[in-house]
Amino acid sequence: MARERGKGTRTRLHNEPMRTPVTIRDVARLAEVHPGTVSRALNEETRALVNEQTAARVLAAADELGYRPNPIARGLKTNRSYTIGVVIPDLTNPLFPPIVRGIEDRLVTAGYTALIVNTDNDPERERSHIQAMLTRQVDGLIAATARLDVAVLADAASRGTPLVLVNRSLEDGSVPAVTVDDRRGIALAVEHVADLGHRLIGNVAGPQNVSTGHRRHVGFVEAMDGLGLAVNPGHVSFAAAFTEPEGARACAQILEHEPLVTAIVAANDRLAMGCYDALAAAGLCCPEDISIVGFNDMPFIDRLRPPLTSVRVPQREIGTTAADLLLAQLTEGETPPRELLLDPRLIVRASTAPPQ
Amino acid sequence: MARERGKGTRTRLHNEPMRTPVTIRDVARLAEVHPGTVSRALNEETRALVNEQTAARVLAAADELGYRPNPIARGLKTNRSYTIGVVIPDLTNPLFPPIVRGIEDRLVTAGYTALIVNTDNDPERERSHIQAMLTRQVDGLIAATARLDVAVLADAASRGTPLVLVNRSLEDGSVPAVTVDDRRGIALAVEHVADLGHRLIGNVAGPQNVSTGHRRHVGFVEAMDGLGLAVNPGHVSFAAAFTEPEGARACAQILEHEPLVTAIVAANDRLAMGCYDALAAAGLCCPEDISIVGFNDMPFIDRLRPPLTSVRVPQREIGTTAADLLLAQLTEGETPPRELLLDPRLIVRASTAPPQ
Repeated sequence: MARERGKGTRTRLHNEPMRTPVTIRDVARLAEVHPGTVSRALNEETRALVNEQTAARVLAAADELGYRPNPIARGLKTNRSYTIGVVIPDLTNPLFPPIVRGIEDRLVTAGYTALIVNTDNDPERERSHIQAMLTRQVDGLIAATARLDVAVLADAASRGTPLVLVNRSLEDGSVPAVTVDDRRGIALAVEHVADLGHRLIGNVAGPQNVSTGHRRHVGFVEAMDGLGLAVNPGHVSFAAAFTEPEGARACAQILEHEPLVTAIVAANDRLAMGCYDALAAAGLCCPEDISIVGFNDMPFIDRLRPPLTSVRVPQREIGTTAADLLLAQLTEGETPPRELLLDPRLIVRASTAPPQ
Repeated sequence: MARERGKGTRTRLHNEPMRTPVTIRDVARLAEVHPGTVSRALNEETRALVNEQTAARVLAAADELGYRPNPIARGLKTNRSYTIGVVIPDLTNPLFPPIVRGIEDRLVTAGYTALIVNTDNDPERERSHIQAMLTRQVDGLIAATARLDVAVLADAASRGTPLVLVNRSLEDGSVPAVTVDDRRGIALAVEHVADLGHRLIGNVAGPQNVSTGHRRHVGFVEAMDGLGLAVNPGHVSFAAAFTEPEGARACAQILEHEPLVTAIVAANDRLAMGCYDALAAAGLCCPEDISIVGFNDMPFIDRLRPPLTSVRVPQREIGTTAADLLLAQLTEGETPPRELLLDPRLIVRASTAPPQ
């Protein structure tokens, strides 16, 4: 009898518009029980409350109809959406895909999914995107944007939505962050060229209103200081953005003011690529005339001519660590560390050589 | 009076656990109206049903409490989650970030958000991820995976969840797809080297069980045929995967069997990079000894030595077009075209030159 009705129900469903989902009521009708019984029978934690034969009938009916519990409705009850908002400046910047990949890998394993938005570091776009995700009741946020709106942070905090920063951090440490140890990374670069014999070392620094740019420049000055090497004003040039043209402009400026510089430590790989362009424009060779070091070790940077010596950032590990921090807060209510610094590694290639 | 109660309510909320969200009932209490009135007043389409002064009081109360309508609850009513599942093999493959970026840009504008999962082209991972997204009731799916499980397709269809493929298509055209015109792209590459004077042209082809690999090889044979140029068996070598080592292996095989080949058209940029490696290993120079053409025009490919001539795929446009197709189905019930072919463009750089 139940089987007959089941077949009937299936036919009816097929004649209805495609988007009508099978509901708990359909399962209840087919199993000839109350919808509440279906709910209890389908939930493993409450199944014992239901007569064993009844539970088996419900499961068979659910199976026959292809019914799946509605995780959105479940989300309403448990106050969880099982989604995490991931806010990045631009996915087409090669820095971010491995980080997002690391985040997603961890989230999926824990039953969460990543909602991803790109902000282009535009404050208005950032605010509206984060607001939209909070309205969607994401359970947490992971943000890699260069600057975060104070109102957005306050809004997330007031909703009790945990937030973890990646690749960036706030100076006051008010939001937990997972970053690479930028100072250590630059120190590795400076020590490497100093070991090769360079003394007049330039720094194509990044924008100073961004934490990575600021830290890497501070790290440069500290490392030079630690080695007893002078940093004249002409040794340092600040790029307004982490782009190739800005790298070329900043490098050309150093070449003009301090032509005796024999090595340049750039704050990231794009700036280093700009240095390549500036050297070519000046008729200089790398590494014969000037050694260049980058930062990030982007994909295919080993295929530049010359292959770029660069500080490798454990990008995927930054992503997995950030997701782990967030999940620990969500599932165990753990208080995250203020900042987690991951170790960089210097990858030596052909763009650095002893001075001639 | 309302202000006093408002302040009281705010204090109470602060003493409660942080995750408790402000509900429509809180707003109703503060505004001294029925929750149904709040709902009507907050919805622009039904606001006219509420007394103007009452509506103003509700809006002020909602504002004071920081209340926002719950889109998950709204999703339950309208049977929409306003999320789209995006299934890609691997975000760290430089092919996909611009596509995902294009998808996300369009979705955000339409009020949707992208849920992203990586499958690594592993059938088991793919099945479980897509199943999880269907259970989460995504409103649609955009998939860029090389192969799609038949059961997954059937499941999506039976739920009435629209699906659009990007960068791949099924031979039977049963699922709408947005791809670049692969044959046209390869024809551009072949015609370019033929114009330079090459006659003995090799093809490092991709895996033939993937639509891009298959189409690009067919395109090569067709284009050579159209120009009256012979394709000997030794001219073609198939890579087992779109990777640099497979490109190197396939290229070395051509060099061994047809040493007189003066140009090689590779099925993608990674295979072309492998060709560079094989030429270097054989002591040959590009383009002096052999011209190489890639496909995809990946980021920074212009910084290889020599910069690679490549077929540019409008990746971002593939993403925006796929999102547009899906949104048209969702919002207007439009039947999508079977396949939308976007035009490739040849970017000529220094890896191609006349034969010597």
